[in-house]
Amino acid sequence: MEKRNIYMDYAATTPVKKEVLEAMLPYYHDLFGNASSVHVFGRGVKGALDKARDEVAKLINADSSEIYFTGGGSESDNWAIKGVAFANKDKGNHIITTKIEHHAVLHTCEYLEKHHGFEVTYLNVDEDGRINLEELKNSITDKTILISIMFANNEIGTIQPIKEIAQIAKEKGILFHTDGVQALGNIPIDVKDLGIDLMAMSAHKIYGPKGVGALYIRKGVKLHSIIHGGAQEKRRRAGTENIAGIVGFGKAAELARIHLDEHIEKLTKLRDKLIKGVLEKIPYTRLNGSLKHRLPGNANFCFEFIEGESLLLSLDIVGIAGSSGSACTSGSLDPSHVLMAIGLTHEIAHGSLRLSLGDMNTEEDIDYVLEHLPKIVERLRAMSPLYEKVAKGGN
Amino acid sequence: MEKRNIYMDYAATTPVKKEVLEAMLPYYHDLFGNASSVHVFGRGVKGALDKARDEVAKLINADSSEIYFTGGGSESDNWAIKGVAFANKDKGNHIITTKIEHHAVLHTCEYLEKHHGFEVTYLNVDEDGRINLEELKNSITDKTILISIMFANNEIGTIQPIKEIAQIAKEKGILFHTDGVQALGNIPIDVKDLGIDLMAMSAHKIYGPKGVGALYIRKGVKLHSIIHGGAQEKRRRAGTENIAGIVGFGKAAELARIHLDEHIEKLTKLRDKLIKGVLEKIPYTRLNGSLKHRLPGNANFCFEFIEGESLLLSLDIVGIAGSSGSACTSGSLDPSHVLMAIGLTHEIAHGSLRLSLGDMNTEEDIDYVLEHLPKIVERLRAMSPLYEKVAKGGN
Ligand SMILES: Cc1ncc(COP(=O)(O)O)c(C=O)c1O
Ligand SMILES: Cc1ncc(COP(=O)(O)O)c(C=O)c1O
Repeated sequence: MEKRNIYMDYAATTPVKKEVLEAMLPYYHDLFGNASSVHVFGRGVKGALDKARDEVAKLINADSSEIYFTGGGSESDNWAIKGVAFANKDKGNHIITTKIEHHAVLHTCEYLEKHHGFEVTYLNVDEDGRINLEELKNSITDKTILISIMFANNEIGTIQPIKEIAQIAKEKGILFHTDGVQALGNIPIDVKDLGIDLMAMSAHKIYGPKGVGALYIRKGVKLHSIIHGGAQEKRRRAGTENIAGIVGFGKAAELARIHLDEHIEKLTKLRDKLIKGVLEKIPYTRLNGSLKHRLPGNANFCFEFIEGESLLLSLDIVGIAGSSGSACTSGSLDPSHVLMAIGLTHEIAHGSLRLSLGDMNTEEDIDYVLEHLPKIVERLRAMSPLYEKVAKGGN
Repeated sequence: MEKRNIYMDYAATTPVKKEVLEAMLPYYHDLFGNASSVHVFGRGVKGALDKARDEVAKLINADSSEIYFTGGGSESDNWAIKGVAFANKDKGNHIITTKIEHHAVLHTCEYLEKHHGFEVTYLNVDEDGRINLEELKNSITDKTILISIMFANNEIGTIQPIKEIAQIAKEKGILFHTDGVQALGNIPIDVKDLGIDLMAMSAHKIYGPKGVGALYIRKGVKLHSIIHGGAQEKRRRAGTENIAGIVGFGKAAELARIHLDEHIEKLTKLRDKLIKGVLEKIPYTRLNGSLKHRLPGNANFCFEFIEGESLLLSLDIVGIAGSSGSACTSGSLDPSHVLMAIGLTHEIAHGSLRLSLGDMNTEEDIDYVLEHLPKIVERLRAMSPLYEKVAKGGN
């Protein structure tokens, strides 16, 4: 097979779709005005902002008025958690989350523990990466003010029982935030039906621009702002609106909604072919995450006896772009906290590879990976003293 | 004169320059990778990020390592103030700022007062809008941890004695933050020479994209993060880098630096012609702000006996886009807090007009304004019962 350039790191970020960029361009020069101003340069802008808000709302079955634009998924997570924490300090200081959250949630919780007197329970997950609902119930105290559990995990793709979690939170009168960054546009989300109070989203994971996100805030939910200032976003999030970015997010949300079914079908098929092929062709390989509760585009493997970094570099040479662990920790030497939480050892966690699929991937891409990956793994293992033992039947 | 479409609201926001947009475009589709990833799609991105950081640093004579990208000017202000406040809670709880700050500073300070036990002194300004250095000195207590005073005001263009303020802060061992959003790219800024510890900046005020900003943090200055999560921006500001936006900011900073002298010369000339013409042609008119310590592109007037909103609408009809008060409060009925602070009455403050000049403005634009504005003011005044009295020689 001829050399290809295959992007399989869609969970880290996605390219901006052509239609999305086209929708954005007018707002850089012709319609550049400030959305709050009354003159002709600003007037069209307000309508574009409303339209984008409608589109993001539609994608998750929210009301338009419940969507607040932000500077990205991390800001949205920080806002939801700090905003609720600071607003409810008098009611309680206990937050419940999980061990496998994205750092935007984990480090925010750790910060509140370290510097603002909050206490945080980090729930365990099973080997599929799912939380235990009984453990969640048992961890609730009369000081619990927030439950923050991610919708779908960025590394292993595991989807949590969101409706059940929301139900438990509601019964106890506790606010429920979910980090929906990886789920958005990849599985159906109906915030009303699910009973979600707050949900973080990010445009660049759904073929929109980077540096734009949103927080869904259910009508009536009170929280402090984290960016104070001007009256934008109904006085809840200050800053001149990133109108081009927001319009791009709106367009990306619209496309995601229209194509959701075919997107899911296509990616699920490619993913299953990839997983099946890899597990069949490469011995001493483990699929991380759940088979059943899994994002359509996620595949995450551990290959015993090899290092994730060398694997990535070798893949890069043949034109396959994947990642090890989350994008944020790539380049760091710590093993993934997610893989540790599902029970892997340090050694095994180090040999992990995430291939996350998206719109540009084809069957041929999967064939290409299935041709090259086994050879690369074999070559790297051949250099590993540990593997030599095993291969010789030793231990 | 033929009808024109004249933008004179550059202090609210600026159009993205052609060269800036061109620099940004590749990062939406071809070079869309995550800057933290190791594969080919992310590799070029890291270099572009570094280059943009260098350019922003050069514009203010900072080290590259002292520039942290954010989601805009408001976030930068919030970060500087909350970050320093929370990090120094144990040392003291007193913050000094002024009555004429942008809301991104004012509302942040008010929030810290209301919810986190801080105390804030809001310094007065004289009728030019400048603070009194003695008053600043006298307001310092042994609990003072931060002085936050804007470099140049967004409404009336007044420039503060930044070097003297920094000197006072330094002598007392207090951190000094300045909101540099309006000053950046409009006057020379040398953070080292001036002795600034922290400075907020925003790309969309210097012909860059909206939704991107930066915080200058002098080496060694400690503050808490406000957006926790991934390891971006040396672990100080989480979130997948808005690479297109950052590249645009870098390009805008480069252009601002290269053209700073001619930019200042051009705008100063246009501004002075505008101010002179307006004051000569329109009676009962007041120039707000300082003659001497004034941003090159700022003109701000009060026209007695008329309302700012009706004035703006009439100007819009003849194709002149200005603003009344700051962009964020346009559309609100509160009189500008800045105009109140320089001693205007409610009535007079309501009749204010800010015309802020920029790159696309020409001498002909000024002539056009000087032709239309007097007629419009005269017409609006003719409808005012108060003015009638004055015109008839009454009182
Ligand atoms: C002085 C000043 N500070 C802060 C800001 C906020 O910047 P941004 O709109 O990028 O959040 C502005 C502009 O709106 C400003 O003029
Ligand atoms: C689950 C999850 N949460 C939050 C984020 C942060 O989003 P952003 O990079 O837009 O800040 C990411 C992606 O990096 C993510 O995968």
